Amino acid sequence: MLLLKTNEVNFQAQFDELLRRGNMDMENVSKIVGGILSEIKVEGNSALKNHIEKFDKWHVGNDEALEVKTEEMKKAYDALDVKLKSALELAYKRIYTYHEKLMPKSWLDFEDNGTVLGQKVTPVDRAGLYIPGGKAAYPSSLLMNAIPAIVAGVKEIVVCTPAPNNELNPLLLAAMHLCGITKAFKVGGASAIGAMAYGTQSIPKVDVITGPGNIFVATAKKLVFGDVNIDMIAGPSEIGVLADTSADPHLLAIDLLSQAEHDEMASSILITPSLEIAEKTRTEVYAWLETLERKAIAEVSIKERGAIIVTSSMDEAVDLMNQIAPEHLEIVTSHPFDLLPRIRHAGAIFMGAYTPEPIGDYIAGPNHTLPTGGTAKFYSPLGVENFLKRSSIISMSKQGIDEIGEACALLAHTEGLGAHEASVRVRLSSK
Amino acid sequence: MLLLKTNEVNFQAQFDELLRRGNMDMENVSKIVGGILSEIKVEGNSALKNHIEKFDKWHVGNDEALEVKTEEMKKAYDALDVKLKSALELAYKRIYTYHEKLMPKSWLDFEDNGTVLGQKVTPVDRAGLYIPGGKAAYPSSLLMNAIPAIVAGVKEIVVCTPAPNNELNPLLLAAMHLCGITKAFKVGGASAIGAMAYGTQSIPKVDVITGPGNIFVATAKKLVFGDVNIDMIAGPSEIGVLADTSADPHLLAIDLLSQAEHDEMASSILITPSLEIAEKTRTEVYAWLETLERKAIAEVSIKERGAIIVTSSMDEAVDLMNQIAPEHLEIVTSHPFDLLPRIRHAGAIFMGAYTPEPIGDYIAGPNHTLPTGGTAKFYSPLGVENFLKRSSIISMSKQGIDEIGEACALLAHTEGLGAHEASVRVRLSSK
Repeated sequence: MLLLKTNEVNFQAQFDELLRRGNMDMENVSKIVGGILSEIKVEGNSALKNHIEKFDKWHVGNDEALEVKTEEMKKAYDALDVKLKSALELAYKRIYTYHEKLMPKSWLDFEDNGTVLGQKVTPVDRAGLYIPGGKAAYPSSLLMNAIPAIVAGVKEIVVCTPAPNNELNPLLLAAMHLCGITKAFKVGGASAIGAMAYGTQSIPKVDVITGPGNIFVATAKKLVFGDVNIDMIAGPSEIGVLADTSADPHLLAIDLLSQAEHDEMASSILITPSLEIAEKTRTEVYAWLETLERKAIAEVSIKERGAIIVTSSMDEAVDLMNQIAPEHLEIVTSHPFDLLPRIRHAGAIFMGAYTPEPIGDYIAGPNHTLPTGGTAKFYSPLGVENFLKRSSIISMSKQGIDEIGEACALLAHTEGLGAHEASVRVRLSSK
Repeated sequence: MLLLKTNEVNFQAQFDELLRRGNMDMENVSKIVGGILSEIKVEGNSALKNHIEKFDKWHVGNDEALEVKTEEMKKAYDALDVKLKSALELAYKRIYTYHEKLMPKSWLDFEDNGTVLGQKVTPVDRAGLYIPGGKAAYPSSLLMNAIPAIVAGVKEIVVCTPAPNNELNPLLLAAMHLCGITKAFKVGGASAIGAMAYGTQSIPKVDVITGPGNIFVATAKKLVFGDVNIDMIAGPSEIGVLADTSADPHLLAIDLLSQAEHDEMASSILITPSLEIAEKTRTEVYAWLETLERKAIAEVSIKERGAIIVTSSMDEAVDLMNQIAPEHLEIVTSHPFDLLPRIRHAGAIFMGAYTPEPIGDYIAGPNHTLPTGGTAKFYSPLGVENFLKRSSIISMSKQGIDEIGEACALLAHTEGLGAHEASVRVRLSSK
């Protein structure tokens, strides 16, 4: 695990390397993904079936076999261990409650002259959720994508998830039942994104596609953007930790590893003004590593992409962290709220010693779908907004247009748009 | 101008044609645009200069010549005719006031056990505004793009606009002064989008790019999406009008033409249950057409893409309009607010006889950058949100994590993420 000091001569070059962590080479896969999307667009279900046969290794047969039966979902839910069921329900409840607080309202504003301006907020008609599957299935991803759509009031939610060998993870099925999903399909990868963007004989065309995925899924989302809306283009997971001497290196270390175990490409970065914390945390990382089931993955991530940076001050640490704009940011200092005003860029901020990042992955309430690779500089966490859109409302009174119409007509005239000018002028009392 | 009736046998086929109005063939230009972006990325300013020489027909010389001088902006502003200056200032003020109302607040929510959840709202560091130029310059586009960024609190705003023959429209320069723009560049097209997305020696890399443009600009915005955020991918302008017998065909006609005069590809669609209104409006359209300076453009648009649809009821009219999801929607009925609850998809809604669409283009307050081609089903008008992003805030108390940590650890365990589980469990009182 790299240990950098900001006062070393080659620091900036090494730091710049960390800033480039999120770069994904989409161009390489764009052609393949573009081909997959065209096949779906032209052939629909039959292309889907070919892709499933090729990638997920099962023969679909008739169209109905693409769909997940709601009875299967219910069966999986009913079969859940009691403790697991109540954990899932607690997660559902907390995520739901948090997302309700994000819900914006339509509004109207009344001017004295009778003019009314405002905004109408409406859910999209149909949302498509992509949930990765395969080796590791993440039911928490289903909750985190479905609940914002449910809170936003989306009438029809479509789920696509790959089913290698025609098998689905029981906990994912149970989570579908809990979320009331009625339209789910055993389709994965770029094919699933194409199917939801353009529609097939079985899968309805949606308005918005959200959800995580590998580079093929991310590229497909980028290619269909504009035909549908998407949430963001996300890469490997990452954590940044700001710590002072009040932090416990044993805890810092396992928090760093909780990202590293996701993916060899995940990044875990600790920034601290304390050399002692830095060195102790590094030792603790290697000690914890030996205890992990997913040691093989976490070790690659930590060695190739993990870094500890020792700064001359906490100010400098915060400045560097803002440049990194991490997906997850832990502030493990004696007074974390003191630093909050100066945090400019982070997907989610975890405050203090009792807020390990994983608590936000499952159960705290806020969404775990977050911008990666520095895109927290411009993207937000997934939320109800991704499933809503707004319409401006303008209602001019006769007095209202008499007051501002002349100025409007003049501006239209100056831009050379005569019909615009006429359409306003013909309504004025003094034409 | 097409006159369709919903009770005719071939109606659905003709209506489907209208629904396809927004389709842009981006694939054709993707390769060219991709090449332009790569050149900018690799060569920076020198590529910009080549593109300017080729497309805008002037020789740039040194780097400084790319930039618009703030003195030029001030000079243009000072030279404005008094009436025009106050019209521009009134527009600024009304747009500013409306967008202030869109501004969300950071918030915190406190649980009894000491846990705190919330959201921090922060502006992006740098925004890039693309303003089309050339034959028709639209200073209103500058106001509509700059003001939301100003209200959002963006520190650095960069403007790019093409300057054919090294000439800029004086009213656009004046509008830059009014908006306090200090970084503007005489660069247009896909090159400008590339320059703002990746940065050059002169033009700083931004976080968000907004603004209208032709198919090359739209395609460039799509290609850089993910490296920066963008507002939306927009096509030709369009208006939908819902009218009953209370409407004045003379006014309906000029409102339809105010979109038609923008662009041969613009769409103007009236839907009404009244055959009389339909026929009279068509007659009025052709009468008004003769009076227009931009007759040539408006005539092509009306003939090739204009349509009047006669329905069996207002209910049916509203349903068809929701399928169209127009950029601009006028409701010209005796009680327009009665229909508002049932309008699901529209960029901006103009209510009643005194609210012609052009009033929203310049001065009413809401933004005129709106989703086109049916994308109002999932995109919103440009607003302060495009220049902001959110960070989730999670602060668990000791009691808080004791209450929900066990459930979290169980979920992590079930997903096979041992480090996640350990990072929570190590903090629990009862480990």
